Amino acid sequence: MTARLHRLEVPTRGKGLYDITRPVEEWMSRQAVGSGLLTVFIQHTSASLTIQENADPDVVHDLNVFFGRLVPEDNRLYRHTIEGPDDMPAHIRAALTLTQLSIPIDQGRMTLGTWQGIYVFEHRAAHHRRTVVLQFLGE
Amino acid sequence: MTARLHRLEVPTRGKGLYDITRPVEEWMSRQAVGSGLLTVFIQHTSASLTIQENADPDVVHDLNVFFGRLVPEDNRLYRHTIEGPDDMPAHIRAALTLTQLSIPIDQGRMTLGTWQGIYVFEHRAAHHRRTVVLQFLGE
Amino acid sequence: MTARLHRLEVPTRGKGLYDITRPVEEWMSRQAVGSGLLTVFIQHTSASLTIQENADPDVVHDLNVFFGRLVPEDNRLYRHTIEGPDDMPAHIRAALTLTQLSIPIDQGRMTLGTWQGIYVFEHRAAHHRRTVVLQFLGE
Repeated sequence: MTARLHRLEVPTRGKGLYDITRPVEEWMSRQAVGSGLLTVFIQHTSASLTIQENADPDVVHDLNVFFGRLVPEDNRLYRHTIEGPDDMPAHIRAALTLTQLSIPIDQGRMTLGTWQGIYVFEHRAAHHRRTVVLQFLGE
Repeated sequence: MTARLHRLEVPTRGKGLYDITRPVEEWMSRQAVGSGLLTVFIQHTSASLTIQENADPDVVHDLNVFFGRLVPEDNRLYRHTIEGPDDMPAHIRAALTLTQLSIPIDQGRMTLGTWQGIYVFEHRAAHHRRTVVLQFLGE
Repeated sequence: MTARLHRLEVPTRGKGLYDITRPVEEWMSRQAVGSGLLTVFIQHTSASLTIQENADPDVVHDLNVFFGRLVPEDNRLYRHTIEGPDDMPAHIRAALTLTQLSIPIDQGRMTLGTWQGIYVFEHRAAHHRRTVVLQFLGE
């Protein structure tokens, strides 16, 4: 059994989805492994992960707009307001999506569907530098 | 260490939850393994996975109705409308639930709770054939 | 490869988030392992898991209040009402969050971010005893 770990730094420029499929694929192909499991884990609670359609950019736009409507920025709704009006909504949006993804690896490659891309979902308004842990476990 | 992979084809007939616990259990028992991890991964972005109560069929009915209310079909809300009024809501419903599940395997069996079933959550109105990757990693 | 499994019992006293980071860390450190994957799996469908900010207790309070507003207790909305007005909302709240978490283990420790805590999210009003399966797979 082999375990490999890498930290991917993802710069974000405000709310929205950032496609990280390519750097994840590149890291996987450099491992030159066979079968196993890839874990993608984001070390934050105001940004999250999701797998979404990679074909029409309107999809991730609409997704971000929907979450803005579902989780309003309105300080009257929250006690936790000291980090700005977008912080508590960011935590809620993260809880509604994913902190971690597990993707089966077959013959060294992710078993993603044709239209699936891996995204960091940034929920804060300011620019951030997000850390995503990639781990391969297998052989 | 051993890695086993299987693709389960799941036909769906419109929006709702489809219990796949039985075929997943059957595949696991055919592997004749001991301890490890089962990953269930759906290769789509308009259908998803969830673990839900398997006792009262009203639970999955109510869950589907709730998601219909939470994510309305209304083209005025979305830019991505070319694939029909149910497509963008399907992507959002998928983002709010799960693309992947990891279930510990102990003595060859899933450690599900008594009332837990594994479901494909179909978010499109038309009939589909969904592919779910099952992977066991362990010994 | 080694696989270790433990069942953590978590008493809950009504709706809200219960921090289990400490007992999970303690179990991991007793395993004296190197690299691998920790799976945290809750065996229920009316309680769930989430990773959230561990610094300001207002965050988990606000999160619980938001879910109360998003998924109302109103028997007219649901068919499944025989287990009380909080049961069907509990299943929906569980479907919107997580049944399972996978956390990479590096040099025997979870790769959590500085502000990340692991929580059981209880969605029922009464006191419960929840079972959380912890599994380490690695070396």
